[in-house]
Amino acid sequence: MPTIVVEVMPKAELLDPQGKATFGALQRLGHAQFQDVRIGKRFELTVDGEVTDATLAEVRTVADDMLSNAVIEDVVAISVDGTPVDVPAAR
Amino acid sequence: MPTIVVEVMPKAELLDPQGKATFGALQRLGHAQFQDVRIGKRFELTVDGEVTDATLAEVRTVADDMLSNAVIEDVVAISVDGTPVDVPAAR
Repeated sequence: MPTIVVEVMPKAELLDPQGKATFGALQRLGHAQFQDVRIGKRFELTVDGEVTDATLAEVRTVADDMLSNAVIEDVVAISVDGTPVDVPAAR
Repeated sequence: MPTIVVEVMPKAELLDPQGKATFGALQRLGHAQFQDVRIGKRFELTVDGEVTDATLAEVRTVADDMLSNAVIEDVVAISVDGTPVDVPAAR
């Protein structure tokens, strides 16, 4: 069954305290090469049957309305079995 | 500055209650095409300077030791500016 991956990140203008804490830990432990860490979410949706344009449109809707909070997060990528797809937002 | 993305998912044999809850919500709202949802994490590491083999080895160490918990999670992908890279585990 095809797997669709939706990637969601906190918006660039938000602080992302979880990422900042991880960044601080990396610095303390001597990993000085890293300049910033941001932490988002990765959703794996398993789909029954073929992935059609209608499926992708539904994934886009779900990604925008349920898997992410548009006030604080961006959907940064959608991919099908490892291949990035470009699905325009419904609105 | 290059961005390295580390993707971490709960191991397949774990239940992932957060994913199950999201899957249940999708079903209730009529998105019946989806058969399963699993939720993992996506780390964006910003790196100072060029990404060398040493950088990738350090990213691998950080991904295995700090960004994921090997008991319950797998590092499923590491990519540099959108290009997947294959970095063998340190151990």
